[in-house]
Amino acid sequence: MRVLICGIDGYLGWTLALHLSSRGHEVLGFDNFDRRKNVEEMGSWSATPILDMKARIEAAKLRHGYDIKFTEGSILDYDFLSRLMRDTAPDAVVHLAEQPSAPFSMMDRTHAYYTQQNNVLGTLNLLFALKEHAPKAHLVKLGTMGEYGTPNVPIPEGFFEIEYRGRKDRLPFPRQAGSFYHLSKVHDSANVAFACKIWGLSSTDIMQGVVYGTRTNDIDDDSLLTRFDFDEAFGTIINRYCAQAVIGYPLTPYGTGHQKRAFIALEDSMQCLTLAIENPPERGEYRVFNQIDEVYGVYELAERVRKAGQAHGLDVSIQALEDPRIEAQEHFYEADHEHLRRLGFKPTRSLDEELDIMLNDLMRFRSRIEAKRSVIAPKITWSQGRVAEQPRPVVAHSFEPDSARSERKDDSEL
Amino acid sequence: MRVLICGIDGYLGWTLALHLSSRGHEVLGFDNFDRRKNVEEMGSWSATPILDMKARIEAAKLRHGYDIKFTEGSILDYDFLSRLMRDTAPDAVVHLAEQPSAPFSMMDRTHAYYTQQNNVLGTLNLLFALKEHAPKAHLVKLGTMGEYGTPNVPIPEGFFEIEYRGRKDRLPFPRQAGSFYHLSKVHDSANVAFACKIWGLSSTDIMQGVVYGTRTNDIDDDSLLTRFDFDEAFGTIINRYCAQAVIGYPLTPYGTGHQKRAFIALEDSMQCLTLAIENPPERGEYRVFNQIDEVYGVYELAERVRKAGQAHGLDVSIQALEDPRIEAQEHFYEADHEHLRRLGFKPTRSLDEELDIMLNDLMRFRSRIEAKRSVIAPKITWSQGRVAEQPRPVVAHSFEPDSARSERKDDSEL
Repeated sequence: MRVLICGIDGYLGWTLALHLSSRGHEVLGFDNFDRRKNVEEMGSWSATPILDMKARIEAAKLRHGYDIKFTEGSILDYDFLSRLMRDTAPDAVVHLAEQPSAPFSMMDRTHAYYTQQNNVLGTLNLLFALKEHAPKAHLVKLGTMGEYGTPNVPIPEGFFEIEYRGRKDRLPFPRQAGSFYHLSKVHDSANVAFACKIWGLSSTDIMQGVVYGTRTNDIDDDSLLTRFDFDEAFGTIINRYCAQAVIGYPLTPYGTGHQKRAFIALEDSMQCLTLAIENPPERGEYRVFNQIDEVYGVYELAERVRKAGQAHGLDVSIQALEDPRIEAQEHFYEADHEHLRRLGFKPTRSLDEELDIMLNDLMRFRSRIEAKRSVIAPKITWSQGRVAEQPRPVVAHSFEPDSARSERKDDSEL
Repeated sequence: MRVLICGIDGYLGWTLALHLSSRGHEVLGFDNFDRRKNVEEMGSWSATPILDMKARIEAAKLRHGYDIKFTEGSILDYDFLSRLMRDTAPDAVVHLAEQPSAPFSMMDRTHAYYTQQNNVLGTLNLLFALKEHAPKAHLVKLGTMGEYGTPNVPIPEGFFEIEYRGRKDRLPFPRQAGSFYHLSKVHDSANVAFACKIWGLSSTDIMQGVVYGTRTNDIDDDSLLTRFDFDEAFGTIINRYCAQAVIGYPLTPYGTGHQKRAFIALEDSMQCLTLAIENPPERGEYRVFNQIDEVYGVYELAERVRKAGQAHGLDVSIQALEDPRIEAQEHFYEADHEHLRRLGFKPTRSLDEELDIMLNDLMRFRSRIEAKRSVIAPKITWSQGRVAEQPRPVVAHSFEPDSARSERKDDSEL
């Protein structure tokens, strides 16, 4: 299959380029390098010393004979995008060209605007380019489990059958996004579903859990490393905890730490995306996959990272901070994730195994994290945007983990 | 009260400026005149010969002593918007500065992009300007009943209580928007609700039915006329039918004509908006009003206009066209609209009374409609964008009205 990866220079994009190449697919991609620029704006860099695009493509060629094609450009540049779609005629397009950080979108008006412009209007461009030049291509679009928020009912995969006032219908499940970034993804989902309906495009819309990990099996040499962010905007929670652990910075769960989120390891995320790509929907079909493996509370995760750190000789402490976000601290959380299992998804990594790999990697790059120690503390609040001081510590008793919450859920009841 | 009207030069904006002034409110507004430009791009103009902004403000001063203040600018220009909010410190802000046409948004990529950019990013700017300079102001935002689509269950006002798999929650009612325009409004609603939640802004989000009418009681002289569009993009259905009737152009319901929509007369829309403005929500509250009066099928409406035309000596025929939109032809439709009634809303105009007024007005401006006769035929399709030929006629038997559908519904069951 010929697969076009939008945003091929990113954490998932580059990893996916390697994985699809290893499976014999023809991979091409574009990027405008905004992720590198945005992380730099946060005063940070990738903990892993990644090569530039030209060099990483050469490395992939040298080690594995992969022939990954790249062109620089922005999804907001329709002429570029439309020409690319016409000239490459991909079988599948994986859309990873969105600004993926909630805190980045909450810094101030400029960043909220940039996020919704890049994501909403960029996706709109992509839909028109597909309609015009590759209407049979399968669009794999990355959404986020965060689109659903934390409703007090189980979360289905995109749609649900309801009875309301004695009548029945199958409707889109209500979205309750918690940041201008998450809102942009909700709108993208709606635009994509509509394009499938009116133009007969086909799309798999992936509501992905929080991804964690430093590597996949395809990354068998440092020259192939994907980026790994640990600043407050682009570092996701487990990745950040691990980076904090290796430099002796207290892990920083927010608030009570009882907020629950759905997670998936980087290796397993690649497996899921590949299953979606290799098993396309019918023409005109819009399907939603919840791409998650396990659900954890954020304090519980800090405990797991602390223990994993001890096994590596790291003395890890935990210091909860007042929650800079506006979100439910105590809430019900259950989400379906059957569609990918039916296609054959089998989780390959346990959290503890993955933490072990991550800490091994990050300890090698400790000095790169240490050099950017100042970016660890969160200074972006949902109510005030970017502020000068990090949130205040929360007193210990208020963030004790609930032991009932910390048990791994049986898959059948997740 | 000091009320800032964003989009004060439009159909609703100018009418509201007069109505609020007549009730003693201090009115100020801005506009970038995009509506005039966009209608001109459609090859059309307002059937009513409207004055330019300076002249209509002078006329309002001369006849009624109103002191309406105006400044030219765009909602996409944040510096302008933010300065205006700071300098004027309004008590209420009415957001009518959106591109309001579904067909206009479906013409091609450029128009879809323009619509979502203006509406989504413009509203985002407005939210930040409110947060920064007028956090206590009440934002009255115009949405549309079209955000809900046509679900097979009754439509509540914004939120609904559901039971799903044995658990309960109050959730946003699912939206199923039917054009890139409608999608932009859905996203605006979500952005506004979020801003109320995180910043404590207050907003009334109005899901408005299709508005019709040439005037209100405040328009007691032609110098005060508001615009009246009849082209396929900016002319809404009843208004277009009336314009077609006065120039002997067959009325053009689409498809089976059984599609149902919710409507409200211009006069009653002003009453509703004023009730919302004069009865603001609590700080931090986000409330949704369904602003509708009656529900009609689109063929049934053509019949009503035909009869009204006969009373004016017009020979009106009906010629249904293949539906250029992608929409359900046969569907259930019921929508709550209790919130405004509880604030005291009482419909003042029946459809037939309003049609009588409209035809009287439009017959006076017949030559202006006749001069733009070529813009009447629909040439914007949902599947192909703008096309050269108008949709084909539908054979007569397929659009016979269902008599059960054509009876006016009792309010209690609407």
